[in-house]
Amino acid sequence: MSIVFEKIGVIRTPYKESKDAPRQPRYSRKISSKVILEEGYQKGLKGIEQFSHIVLIFYIDRSHGYELETHPHSSPEKRGVFATRSPHRPNNIGISVVKLDRVEKNILYIENADMLDNTPLLDIKPYID
Amino acid sequence: MSIVFEKIGVIRTPYKESKDAPRQPRYSRKISSKVILEEGYQKGLKGIEQFSHIVLIFYIDRSHGYELETHPHSSPEKRGVFATRSPHRPNNIGISVVKLDRVEKNILYIENADMLDNTPLLDIKPYID
Repeated sequence: MSIVFEKIGVIRTPYKESKDAPRQPRYSRKISSKVILEEGYQKGLKGIEQFSHIVLIFYIDRSHGYELETHPHSSPEKRGVFATRSPHRPNNIGISVVKLDRVEKNILYIENADMLDNTPLLDIKPYID
Repeated sequence: MSIVFEKIGVIRTPYKESKDAPRQPRYSRKISSKVILEEGYQKGLKGIEQFSHIVLIFYIDRSHGYELETHPHSSPEKRGVFATRSPHRPNNIGISVVKLDRVEKNILYIENADMLDNTPLLDIKPYID
């Protein structure tokens, strides 16, 4: 069963290649990035500025192929891909909680994003602990 | 730009219709549910039992259509869809953090799931606070 989603915007970060990107968002605090939502969706942001953090759901577009068992950075033992945050997954869906600084029209200014520059955005949700 | 994912399993819960489902996972604690991963992906679960909670990413398959501004349950004011957890979204991607009780082969026994029965599963990630 195939499921089709549409890109609704793009995430702009300083990370051009995967070797530049932090392995976890906690290593990227204070690095400014932005989400550029397609203009047709701008009304969907109403009220989002009341949240200090948001969840970005994105397509990990520069990951190709995966293995079901993989070596996480932190461990010498192999682990199943669903027990890791590896970007190489059966479905390349990424999730990151980022700090929301401010919103201007269709642009969200954020901190501690860890994805590559120009990553396609699929959804934004408020982060509720 | 269209992005295509494949169903990798199914989430079985007691909620047959949206009127039965809890509005937030915190209302569904201690309700047992399970994730049935397709057998070909079973190796991808290795080591997942070390996590007390996991993140399920799923396709909200019984939601059709959306409005960019909507009334959240908690508020008389309209709010943008991206500032809500409404299941009616431009891309029907759902995320839930659930408690992981145990794993048996390709089946994960979980608590506090809030999605409808037979929801298509897209990804599982470990929950790291």
